[in-house]
Amino acid sequence: MAPTAVDNSSAAVSQPIVTKQVSGTQLHPLDDITTAEHHLAVQLIRAEHKNDGIEPWFKTVQRQEPRKAVLLPWLDAYHAGKNPAPLPRKVEAIYIEPKTAKIHEVLVDVASEKVESHTIVEGNHRTNLDISQLVALEESILTEPLVKQALAELGLPEDTPIASDPWIYGADSFEDQPYFMQFLMYLKSPRCALDGDNFHYSWPLPFVPVVDVISGKVTQVDWCFTGDSADGMVHTWKEGWAKANMEEREYMPHLQADFKPREGLKPLIVQQPEGPSFTVKGKAVEWQGWKFRIAWTAREGLTLHDLRFKDRSVFHRLSMSEMTVPYGDPRPPLHRKQAFDVGDASCGFTANSLSLGCDCLGAIHYFDGQLALPNGELLQQQNVVCMHEVDDGLGMKHTNYRTNNPYVVRRRTLVLQTIITVDNYEYIFLWHFDQTGAISFEVRATGVLSVSPIDAGKTSPYGNIVSRGVLGTNHQHIFSVRVDPRIDGDGNTVHYEDSVTMPFDTEEDKLVNPHGVGYTVEKTVLANEGGANLDPSKNRTFKITNPNKINAISKKPIGYKLHMPATQLLLAHPKSVAYARAEFARQHVWVTKYRDDELWAGGKWTNQSNGKQGGVATYARNKESTVNEDVVMWCTFGLTHNPRVEDFPVMPIESLMMSLKPNDFWETCPILDIPTSTQAANKSVLVSNGESCCSKK
Amino acid sequence: MAPTAVDNSSAAVSQPIVTKQVSGTQLHPLDDITTAEHHLAVQLIRAEHKNDGIEPWFKTVQRQEPRKAVLLPWLDAYHAGKNPAPLPRKVEAIYIEPKTAKIHEVLVDVASEKVESHTIVEGNHRTNLDISQLVALEESILTEPLVKQALAELGLPEDTPIASDPWIYGADSFEDQPYFMQFLMYLKSPRCALDGDNFHYSWPLPFVPVVDVISGKVTQVDWCFTGDSADGMVHTWKEGWAKANMEEREYMPHLQADFKPREGLKPLIVQQPEGPSFTVKGKAVEWQGWKFRIAWTAREGLTLHDLRFKDRSVFHRLSMSEMTVPYGDPRPPLHRKQAFDVGDASCGFTANSLSLGCDCLGAIHYFDGQLALPNGELLQQQNVVCMHEVDDGLGMKHTNYRTNNPYVVRRRTLVLQTIITVDNYEYIFLWHFDQTGAISFEVRATGVLSVSPIDAGKTSPYGNIVSRGVLGTNHQHIFSVRVDPRIDGDGNTVHYEDSVTMPFDTEEDKLVNPHGVGYTVEKTVLANEGGANLDPSKNRTFKITNPNKINAISKKPIGYKLHMPATQLLLAHPKSVAYARAEFARQHVWVTKYRDDELWAGGKWTNQSNGKQGGVATYARNKESTVNEDVVMWCTFGLTHNPRVEDFPVMPIESLMMSLKPNDFWETCPILDIPTSTQAANKSVLVSNGESCCSKK
Repeated sequence: MAPTAVDNSSAAVSQPIVTKQVSGTQLHPLDDITTAEHHLAVQLIRAEHKNDGIEPWFKTVQRQEPRKAVLLPWLDAYHAGKNPAPLPRKVEAIYIEPKTAKIHEVLVDVASEKVESHTIVEGNHRTNLDISQLVALEESILTEPLVKQALAELGLPEDTPIASDPWIYGADSFEDQPYFMQFLMYLKSPRCALDGDNFHYSWPLPFVPVVDVISGKVTQVDWCFTGDSADGMVHTWKEGWAKANMEEREYMPHLQADFKPREGLKPLIVQQPEGPSFTVKGKAVEWQGWKFRIAWTAREGLTLHDLRFKDRSVFHRLSMSEMTVPYGDPRPPLHRKQAFDVGDASCGFTANSLSLGCDCLGAIHYFDGQLALPNGELLQQQNVVCMHEVDDGLGMKHTNYRTNNPYVVRRRTLVLQTIITVDNYEYIFLWHFDQTGAISFEVRATGVLSVSPIDAGKTSPYGNIVSRGVLGTNHQHIFSVRVDPRIDGDGNTVHYEDSVTMPFDTEEDKLVNPHGVGYTVEKTVLANEGGANLDPSKNRTFKITNPNKINAISKKPIGYKLHMPATQLLLAHPKSVAYARAEFARQHVWVTKYRDDELWAGGKWTNQSNGKQGGVATYARNKESTVNEDVVMWCTFGLTHNPRVEDFPVMPIESLMMSLKPNDFWETCPILDIPTSTQAANKSVLVSNGESCCSKK
Repeated sequence: MAPTAVDNSSAAVSQPIVTKQVSGTQLHPLDDITTAEHHLAVQLIRAEHKNDGIEPWFKTVQRQEPRKAVLLPWLDAYHAGKNPAPLPRKVEAIYIEPKTAKIHEVLVDVASEKVESHTIVEGNHRTNLDISQLVALEESILTEPLVKQALAELGLPEDTPIASDPWIYGADSFEDQPYFMQFLMYLKSPRCALDGDNFHYSWPLPFVPVVDVISGKVTQVDWCFTGDSADGMVHTWKEGWAKANMEEREYMPHLQADFKPREGLKPLIVQQPEGPSFTVKGKAVEWQGWKFRIAWTAREGLTLHDLRFKDRSVFHRLSMSEMTVPYGDPRPPLHRKQAFDVGDASCGFTANSLSLGCDCLGAIHYFDGQLALPNGELLQQQNVVCMHEVDDGLGMKHTNYRTNNPYVVRRRTLVLQTIITVDNYEYIFLWHFDQTGAISFEVRATGVLSVSPIDAGKTSPYGNIVSRGVLGTNHQHIFSVRVDPRIDGDGNTVHYEDSVTMPFDTEEDKLVNPHGVGYTVEKTVLANEGGANLDPSKNRTFKITNPNKINAISKKPIGYKLHMPATQLLLAHPKSVAYARAEFARQHVWVTKYRDDELWAGGKWTNQSNGKQGGVATYARNKESTVNEDVVMWCTFGLTHNPRVEDFPVMPIESLMMSLKPNDFWETCPILDIPTSTQAANKSVLVSNGESCCSKK
């Protein structure tokens, strides 16, 4: 199979190399790849293959992040106004050979216009899928004999409208396997089949074609167990099964059978008559004391860099490194379902183009992204990040009860939102900045459940029936957020603090805890690379501190603390391949020493990974010292999602949030300088009985 | 000490009894007490004492909630449009005898204008404090010899500006004790002492006067230990201590020494040009399918009643029942600090009057409350609840990747906010309703830390230094939310579900979990009254179901699930009096059988309680059946707050949220009927480089 040609014209373009951008200003080392850089890299890579006939199937072509050893001094000089010399720009590319899936990694030096290194990756690894692959295969498999035969076994005529949803193959074995992809099969509603927005997920079919990605051919069809716990692993589907299980469900208003819009929701408009409080120059943002840059990568989508608050460094880099989505139904072939949506699908490829007034309310700034298409073209992705301000209610209040004078400071936040669509499912990622120097990462899970077929009338221990014949399978979404801190400078340490009941004195002469109310805080330093868990029963709180900077008030190191829900870790059995491949999902917090390119909590090659592809536990394997070092903290949290009926056909959001908050970073409350809340600025409207002054006619 | 006379005129008012209100419409049984009812009760109570010279010191005069056995049928008839006959209105009053603190409870029947019952409460119980008490005492104690002597021992001249903050006495012993109150003492800044809004909490003094509440006299002065862990319980303060520890801190902008307002925060205005989406009739609210009533009680402040969503009953009553705030410094006398801010201080008495554009942004509806003053007057409390709508980002999204057509539904919520000021501290309580039928309760903790004195330059194992000489003592805030469910009708059951890894098959013939990925959900019914804990390692999820109603899709009982963070429980030692008095704070979830008037998770009389005053564990002591019964669920969550330097002088909010979400309550996603998000309604504005179209001149 060859990469889909969207438009071949760009492949032939030869342009002079330009390292200037943004109206003539010099590129910042963290600026995304330029068009010229992209085409240079693609040309040079094509040139590598001018004699072997290999047409590279591009997966990634992007600006390589400058090595931290040179980037940090550059950033410090830059912030000191020293106008440092540009850092060499490099482009990193990943592509495969279409006929072998061999992975090539190429590094291009822009200034010299040369390939600096070119490696063929050893081992049995798989890159991420890309959309062109999926779209091509989902059509072609319907014509494959094994699929036609399966449909016939179910008694479905050839003209039955069928939808085939590509799915990452997942994990089947600790052994290396061919490059596979699997498909989940559905019937389309006869009533809506001709409308492209028909909802097919309410009619899952009980077979799974497996495709050899290299040949594009279906090599096997696996049949699903559709019974209940009494049936166990006995096939209970038979001819006619599909029709007996049919129930039409639609979500699009124009397709819903009896759509009656809920009445009474009045418009709510957010206005900023003086404009927003942020400023943007290229990819640099300033807001309420914050300065940071954003970037866009193929795999992570949005990344945040060089975050400073009131001119003190806070974080060097923040990103959503990986997630794993294992399903809890043990019955083959659905046991394989375990997606790593960052490494398998890529947040860049799956990013939504957001639209004004739809995804984003208020005064909105959009950032674009860019991606290499399989054929080497450069895709400019419009509006992949929206940024706006939010009023988040009260941020601080105190009323002096003697004077009755209130002191009220509202809480304004700056939100950067990206949304990815991974086949059936949506993830909304939100970075929230606040005025105290805190930053939060929120995930909103929505979209369509990945469902499986079940005999009508039966129930299952592995999920909930969400529609006739549809099992909403129990599953988990476990995320790993990579936090590369630079808390007020270099040399950071991670520790946790437990709040622990003191022993109760019983003897007068001890006099330490005579009434039994005392508790103390026990500190444990993560002195070496490795992981640790949250423990809410101890109020365990992780902190990143800079032991070289002592807070003048508290006499404790300057730091940030992590607020994160102690969510359930990976449920897959520790001896399973599902467990082996999701290293990050075994502990809540990991600490590693910083090393360039160690960005992947679930390993660099997650697609069909089988425990040999590494991840954060592998990064930590040498247990190097992490005290007063350049450390990275990895934060694991997630949802165990045992679906409700309410989660179908489209799921109302489930939200999860982690926060990093200054902790003895400042010598006083950092928002005492925010003007108090006044009606003059806020222009609220008094309403009585649901009518505002404005709405009264 | 006598109740403060604010205005005696009302005491003499004799009015005809009116059971009609709201422009002639009949009172709803849950309507708050009317002015006439209030005065009737006060008159009848005074009449009870016409011969004994006792001037009642009123604590509560309010509408008694109708007994549930009559209220439920009335409500059902009401919703069925049957215009049921009014229920008898009763007023319940609590007052004490000023000279003995004996507690009287009186029930008045409104229709007959008679005292129905009059009880003198047995045992050594204390009612809540009230503001008049505090204000009177905080002045008078400064003239007391023991206080003057203590100031002299610290070398402070008589004219030193001093602030004395009243504090609940807390817990000192399992034995009954006199009716005490304690005061925390502070110096005022000389620069700002004459400004009523000066901030005295940065200069805590190391002594605590204890006041006999009956006599109003200081009976003892307890000196604090101000050293570090090496000093232990050796007094290290000496003459001159206070001056050596002084550092001026202020929060009010006009008092901050070098106030430079943070620049650049542009106005953000929420507009609803067609008015809000809610309607209000008296205390009845309708919004987006929700119908509920609010009420206002002396102790709980805002309560929510008869909550129905799309005409199905959901909850009968929701309230914040109690909280406890124990401090972790074991050194006397500060070991006593353990407030129960609902029972000790009362959310009604301490409620803020909220103001437009300051506490509340957007199109705001306010509700008033009412309270009995100590002298029997009726205080109309303006704007104690604000209600408005919030746009909470995206509520649901799915993009069909084949057509690229997005389906976006924004998440609108309805928020009811109350704020209480308990001396130094503020709690912001928010009830959030959403369009799916979920309801959330959020607490935002803010205000001023309750601090203690420490020798300058020393640190403490019991807290963090937040300013020179100021120890921000480690403490907890543990809340109990009382959930009286009526999930689609009567007869509810609480259970929890654990998600548990399945054993890994090793033998071919077992074939249950051949690849080790399976997990199952184990259900445990809380079949009898008692408590249970959350366990995030098992994703333990509590559900309230109606076993009499089966979801037609899932075949499982209709229900709601609880989302609640698994926060740390009470740290006080299980043998301590602090532990004995906070029954609710020992487990995350309690289930009791409904009994009228069992509303108090920490016992009815929390002030100086010592383990004999009951609470939710006492309610549950008979372990009655809670299967398919009228059950009440009590939800415990909180903060272990080990202060940051950033939390002083005023603390940026810490937020905690619990949610109750429909779970197999509906047969489909309940927000499919919400119109999708459009720019036509939302009128967002595109900005570039921080400038919106509007702001460009």
